[in-house]
Amino acid sequence: MLEIIFFLPKGPFYLNELSDDTSNKSNKLKISDIKTLEKAGKKDLTFFSSIHYKSCAIKTKAAACITTKNLEQYLPESCIKIVVKNVLYSTAKILKKFYPDADLDYPDKSLVESKKISSKFSSVIFGKNIFIGKKVKIGSKTHVGSNTIIEHDVQIGKNCLIGLNVTIKNAIIGNNVVIQDGCKVGVKGFGFIPLKDKNFRFSHIGRVILKDYVELGANCTIDRGSIGDTIIGENTFLDNQVHMAHNVKLGKNCMIAGQVGFAGSSTIGDNVSIGGQAGVSGHLKIGNNVRIGGGSGVVKDIPDNTTVMGYPAVPLKEFLKKGKNNGKQH
Amino acid sequence: MLEIIFFLPKGPFYLNELSDDTSNKSNKLKISDIKTLEKAGKKDLTFFSSIHYKSCAIKTKAAACITTKNLEQYLPESCIKIVVKNVLYSTAKILKKFYPDADLDYPDKSLVESKKISSKFSSVIFGKNIFIGKKVKIGSKTHVGSNTIIEHDVQIGKNCLIGLNVTIKNAIIGNNVVIQDGCKVGVKGFGFIPLKDKNFRFSHIGRVILKDYVELGANCTIDRGSIGDTIIGENTFLDNQVHMAHNVKLGKNCMIAGQVGFAGSSTIGDNVSIGGQAGVSGHLKIGNNVRIGGGSGVVKDIPDNTTVMGYPAVPLKEFLKKGKNNGKQH
Amino acid sequence: MLEIIFFLPKGPFYLNELSDDTSNKSNKLKISDIKTLEKAGKKDLTFFSSIHYKSCAIKTKAAACITTKNLEQYLPESCIKIVVKNVLYSTAKILKKFYPDADLDYPDKSLVESKKISSKFSSVIFGKNIFIGKKVKIGSKTHVGSNTIIEHDVQIGKNCLIGLNVTIKNAIIGNNVVIQDGCKVGVKGFGFIPLKDKNFRFSHIGRVILKDYVELGANCTIDRGSIGDTIIGENTFLDNQVHMAHNVKLGKNCMIAGQVGFAGSSTIGDNVSIGGQAGVSGHLKIGNNVRIGGGSGVVKDIPDNTTVMGYPAVPLKEFLKKGKNNGKQH
Repeated sequence: MLEIIFFLPKGPFYLNELSDDTSNKSNKLKISDIKTLEKAGKKDLTFFSSIHYKSCAIKTKAAACITTKNLEQYLPESCIKIVVKNVLYSTAKILKKFYPDADLDYPDKSLVESKKISSKFSSVIFGKNIFIGKKVKIGSKTHVGSNTIIEHDVQIGKNCLIGLNVTIKNAIIGNNVVIQDGCKVGVKGFGFIPLKDKNFRFSHIGRVILKDYVELGANCTIDRGSIGDTIIGENTFLDNQVHMAHNVKLGKNCMIAGQVGFAGSSTIGDNVSIGGQAGVSGHLKIGNNVRIGGGSGVVKDIPDNTTVMGYPAVPLKEFLKKGKNNGKQH
Repeated sequence: MLEIIFFLPKGPFYLNELSDDTSNKSNKLKISDIKTLEKAGKKDLTFFSSIHYKSCAIKTKAAACITTKNLEQYLPESCIKIVVKNVLYSTAKILKKFYPDADLDYPDKSLVESKKISSKFSSVIFGKNIFIGKKVKIGSKTHVGSNTIIEHDVQIGKNCLIGLNVTIKNAIIGNNVVIQDGCKVGVKGFGFIPLKDKNFRFSHIGRVILKDYVELGANCTIDRGSIGDTIIGENTFLDNQVHMAHNVKLGKNCMIAGQVGFAGSSTIGDNVSIGGQAGVSGHLKIGNNVRIGGGSGVVKDIPDNTTVMGYPAVPLKEFLKKGKNNGKQH
Repeated sequence: MLEIIFFLPKGPFYLNELSDDTSNKSNKLKISDIKTLEKAGKKDLTFFSSIHYKSCAIKTKAAACITTKNLEQYLPESCIKIVVKNVLYSTAKILKKFYPDADLDYPDKSLVESKKISSKFSSVIFGKNIFIGKKVKIGSKTHVGSNTIIEHDVQIGKNCLIGLNVTIKNAIIGNNVVIQDGCKVGVKGFGFIPLKDKNFRFSHIGRVILKDYVELGANCTIDRGSIGDTIIGENTFLDNQVHMAHNVKLGKNCMIAGQVGFAGSSTIGDNVSIGGQAGVSGHLKIGNNVRIGGGSGVVKDIPDNTTVMGYPAVPLKEFLKKGKNNGKQH
């Protein structure tokens, strides 16, 4: 089920059509797609922008890779290096060629009111004024509330409960999932190259994957992945007004309280609980069984089985000691 | 007006149908409902999970009570004690028997478009594409904005202004109340017994009570009570994106700024003002005339007439002194 | 384009109809409108409530001004002074006379479904179930998503992308603007005179101005101005769930991450970046090229080219030093 794609690449393109910086490269090479270092195959282009991803770069099977002068040494010899100054900007420009419609959420033109296609969904319980895009699949005994919109190709499992005024796009949703009123699932993330006068948007071709038994509280916003996916693991519950940015991976059996925010691309383990209004910065790795106190601001990785608190968040013991010391001072 | 109920109990059940742990109890006892320690009558079951509620336990009139080995001593002799390890889990399972449909927000199947039933609401001013459930009452001169959904049995007073894209369920709303665009009122709260693989949801049979002259800003989320109610007092105004969890009781004449969050079951007095993005933890008692600074995190009770600030929030004087001391250090 | 007004003043009124405190003033003077100190002309009334605005008061061309005993000395001799105890309350009462319908968001009664008036908008791409008020203008190649409401007199430029479940009122929107799903634009702000039993609302006659290339993330709330406007400059991007209160002026090329909150009337310069969940208090002046760390609470003015962090936010160097000192203590 996880191989559904929402955006089809244009192309293939010759490599020299994609980059200005390919003077001494094979311009007859045909590139089918642009993928992450791990997922790219021998017909794909990839990108390598940070030493953080060195271990993936060493093993990439990509035909070619956009990278910097400093990083190109880590790529396999067979991989054609396209050396640029700003990897993300060059990548964003090529992504836009492959996926010209994925940098914005163009409203789905295939929407049809559910009552006109109810025979296709005979085991689904619909409210009123619901719009469904083409190729949407919804499992049996799933409820869909009034004024909800489900765009093309979305898949929803069985026994789900989708609330009122919800919008879902670019998402694959398991069984027994609950999405409460007002959630916005699968929207384009906050990714762009900041430029004076006109920012350049990063195409978002990823998806939102909600595993079985997930619950989203009211008015949550879950961005889809940029190149990878945004994922919420089995039996993880989010309270109201949680914001999850693109590419976040949240494990299973987690409890995320109200108004928590996740910046992009962090990975959170299993059995993690996060108190209300806490924030998790981007590109972090939070271990399993971690507990983050309400209102905390997490700005670095947290190992397994740790309880943290504060702004910036520190282990609980340290947080309490600091409070005590401050207390002594006055 | 406050006796309207949104969920009708199944039953009655014999006590031994409700609990595994009733070997030496009267299995012929019929139980009509499950209620709080205060509200339970001689045909009702109740639950007692924390020494916090000792004073209520002593006086309960319930026929039987789910509790622990340590707590059973505080209950009246006449009350049958059902001793369990996890009071909330046992209570949740029994609640699910009495109220099998209250642990999820099943969309209301009785919704009808307002223009089809406008004769019933001749003194109400409706926008477009509004859906109304059965037995809804709306007072005269109340405006209801377009794309709004009001589910069954909701009561709304006169001279109210309900905005666009609002959803209201399980709520009793006074006169002259303003609810701005995008609010979600009466949704199920974030209450469940965390279990590996499949959390067990706590049924939410409570309501949202908005008293006269309340105002909710845009995109607020107000959860209904679990067993009791969530209440906002007269003339209390909330700014945009405020999140209020189940069972919170907010007094009258309060001013709650944008993006404030309330965890469950706290009680806040009258004339309280709370600055933007502040958070109030669960099960606290905040007094009258309290002022909480913007961005503060309140984690303990606050007496009347106190101004607090910081994370965790401390009295203003202490907060300023701490800042000064920190300032001296560098 | 910026001269569009959404609320027309009643009147003119004789000055003595507007104020109880005009015993020794010309009661034959006709007042056309109430405006800010800068914008008021010789037929207008204005108000002066804080020494903060002294420089504007000195130069005002208003016929009359509501002010206090302490402040009246700064007004031009020709300007009639109306001395009151509570300037904002007196102003609010007069505003209500001129604009009786601007203190609440009465749903637009002129809404018509877009498909009934599609000939008027032949170059606009509409989804389903969209409602449009009278005199709305939408530029060519603009997309409007399903279940969206655009109230009377709103202007939207060309090549814009308005998402699903959006509501827009009292707003003037440039070209190439993106508004993602669930945004509420142009709602009444959180402005009122707190009174026991029944607060007195401040009429909101201002607008929301979104300049070219602005982007709003999902579920943002942007309040309209009270007397002035709320403005977002060219090429400024907001992430999801940002809350912007009345009268905020945000410059161009800014990046505002998720769940940031702006209290009323602050002015933020160009090229400002603000991390997730940060808050900016009211009536501040944030300079150009300022960087505010995620989760920070900004409570005073920030000069150009400064990076701040913390709660309350201090320059980065100071924030890091404080962390270090705290670290040394234990």
